[in-house]
Amino acid sequence: MISAMILSIGDELVLGQTVDTNSAWLSQQLAAIGVRVTGHATVPDDQPRIEAAISAASSTCDVLIISGGIGPTEDDLTRQAVAAVMGVPLELNPTALATLTTFFARLNRQMPESNTIQAMLPRGSQMIENTCGTAAGIKADIARPAGGNSRVYVMPGVPREMKAMFVRDIMPKLQSEGGGAAIVSRTLHTFGVGESTVAEQLGALMQRGRNPSVGTTVAGGVVSLRVNAYFDSREKTIEEAERTSAACHQILGDLIYGQDGESLQQVVAGLLRQAGKTVATAESCTGGLLAKTLTDLAGSSALFSYGWVTYANAAKEQLLGVKSETLASHGAVSEEVVIEMASGARARAGSDFALSISGVAGPDGGTEAKPVGMVCIALADAQSTRARTFRFSGDREFVRDRSAKMALAMLRFKLLGKSMPF
Amino acid sequence: MISAMILSIGDELVLGQTVDTNSAWLSQQLAAIGVRVTGHATVPDDQPRIEAAISAASSTCDVLIISGGIGPTEDDLTRQAVAAVMGVPLELNPTALATLTTFFARLNRQMPESNTIQAMLPRGSQMIENTCGTAAGIKADIARPAGGNSRVYVMPGVPREMKAMFVRDIMPKLQSEGGGAAIVSRTLHTFGVGESTVAEQLGALMQRGRNPSVGTTVAGGVVSLRVNAYFDSREKTIEEAERTSAACHQILGDLIYGQDGESLQQVVAGLLRQAGKTVATAESCTGGLLAKTLTDLAGSSALFSYGWVTYANAAKEQLLGVKSETLASHGAVSEEVVIEMASGARARAGSDFALSISGVAGPDGGTEAKPVGMVCIALADAQSTRARTFRFSGDREFVRDRSAKMALAMLRFKLLGKSMPF
Repeated sequence: MISAMILSIGDELVLGQTVDTNSAWLSQQLAAIGVRVTGHATVPDDQPRIEAAISAASSTCDVLIISGGIGPTEDDLTRQAVAAVMGVPLELNPTALATLTTFFARLNRQMPESNTIQAMLPRGSQMIENTCGTAAGIKADIARPAGGNSRVYVMPGVPREMKAMFVRDIMPKLQSEGGGAAIVSRTLHTFGVGESTVAEQLGALMQRGRNPSVGTTVAGGVVSLRVNAYFDSREKTIEEAERTSAACHQILGDLIYGQDGESLQQVVAGLLRQAGKTVATAESCTGGLLAKTLTDLAGSSALFSYGWVTYANAAKEQLLGVKSETLASHGAVSEEVVIEMASGARARAGSDFALSISGVAGPDGGTEAKPVGMVCIALADAQSTRARTFRFSGDREFVRDRSAKMALAMLRFKLLGKSMPF
Repeated sequence: MISAMILSIGDELVLGQTVDTNSAWLSQQLAAIGVRVTGHATVPDDQPRIEAAISAASSTCDVLIISGGIGPTEDDLTRQAVAAVMGVPLELNPTALATLTTFFARLNRQMPESNTIQAMLPRGSQMIENTCGTAAGIKADIARPAGGNSRVYVMPGVPREMKAMFVRDIMPKLQSEGGGAAIVSRTLHTFGVGESTVAEQLGALMQRGRNPSVGTTVAGGVVSLRVNAYFDSREKTIEEAERTSAACHQILGDLIYGQDGESLQQVVAGLLRQAGKTVATAESCTGGLLAKTLTDLAGSSALFSYGWVTYANAAKEQLLGVKSETLASHGAVSEEVVIEMASGARARAGSDFALSISGVAGPDGGTEAKPVGMVCIALADAQSTRARTFRFSGDREFVRDRSAKMALAMLRFKLLGKSMPF
């Protein structure tokens, strides 16, 4: 099994101004392809410290994954440190320079002189293309004191650029170098019930030491089951991972909305597309988040065309035809109002479905009868408009996020022709 | 100045199942009391690796701050590793045992036998009370190979318990040992130009070794300058940080929109509030993201009431009054169309300003004339409606994010009564 260390470089990390999310992401990716991560290290933008960290890590690991410190500024010192540890000078790489020049030309901008440093690579290293930015990556071999080489990959610190580079270039290389024992991970996603409820239902499947193992993680209200299988042969590993995944499906049923990279909005979009249906949105407290979520996906214009953000009562009346009496007698956060919002939106958009949301996102505006976190959501279709009231317990961002996800969950169960199990 | 390393221990961190937020939090606290953090390291629940990390860190630093690995289970090995590095056995600490027993008695629960290990401390170390959980902390001295001692503090990994212990016990100790020297950090945010352009303009201010130092970081298109000042007295440190911040402002002018925790939308909302003005939104490719961003903030109803997501051409015509001839002759992504969207939105909302966005977010839908990343943005006010065309180079999420931010930037400069410097 290949062993790897992850090294993050940047003053902002060591000063705590930025939380390092790269290391956790890289660790997950490496675990998924059977590379054993033995540790993370973070050092400031200080060349001697970067060199010491590279030397220490490369002497104990097969692979060293570095992110950060390859920008165009004076405090970007990773390339210099790698060259120093290799004992070679930096050289201008013509391909890297051409890529840089093209990058700026495409933007109709003059390349600043300072960017030239980004085309300099340690002699004997290879460039890794950056498809999203100016900082080319570096692949190099560092001789170990005890003999043999350690492979070093250097990537930009910007998470988006780092992830694109890792997935496109480095992961396939590591995978082909691996061989032997395999790890297969499947992640199954649920939304709507808590982690402990999911864990209780799964029972023995979550026992420690089981192989495949089943663990839960929670992010943004999504409770995910991670199934990890480790066996000698890849076939056996896949087979066992599938068998355990099927057992989870058996127990949790439609609570599982998707797996691995699938998002709730992707699943809902897929169901809408399958049914040839469209949806419109009418939002108050989520302020456009539901529409934004539906349009995160390319090609969403086939299923979504019309959205309203009616943050004020006047907007609800003027744009969606909510009656002023309804607002006056029930208040903006009420099932009565979201029902009129959803049916108004559906009629005006000429869509098959409409979702509406009105709630108290907080931190202010809560009352005893309508506390912060109380949210009404309605779903209109050709037959009827039904509303439900939820209570989300968290800050403004939390309440808005869960509201948008719950609206999508309601539409998902409608499209499945089932009632919501929560 | 005291130097410190932060060591986090846990398989879940090294496997990427949990993002390590403790290190960033501790770094911030340490910086605030004038302790210089020289790096972070993360190792799995593996005793030899924990020992190696403790030895390496304690040989280079005055203080080593450890979190994790002191729970009651078999994979909690930090106390054993500290004892091994100190070359002493673990001993039962009567105070720690009494505290544990009391803890369980208060919960009316029998103390599981496995918890007894939590009352074991390396001989010669001191217990640090845990007011929120069962894992007592450890304070110990480790002899350095080069002579002298390194002080080691061990805390639980659970963030809530760790933070309580650090603030109550460890921070005051470090502060009293430190004496004098302080670090003050200021972060100034810009949006609209690249990192290298900002760095070139700042020139000598960014020179390495300067104190206060000025560095740049980029996140979501926001280029931030980090000003760090380190001097013996707190007064001098603040004074110098302010002087360098002022120099950055002098050079970059209105390119700097805010500092520290301020977001672009907060600044724009503040300017709108000051002027007593309102804004409406009309979005195509951003699909609600601009409205969502404006309503991220509590109290946004005073400045934002109406938003439209007109993803289809028909929606642009029906909801905003965009002329079908304009759509036919210029296409949905054109300055002509966003101008009609913005003025239509402003008229319907009765707002002071309206922002509109239409672009090719990708990954599909690009043509030679209108490539992926081309985005038109218009701003309407009582006098006129002006549009600009931008080219953002990145994936769908990138294009949508930068479009929403650029719209906010346009509104900001309008409210400042200045023309955009980019």
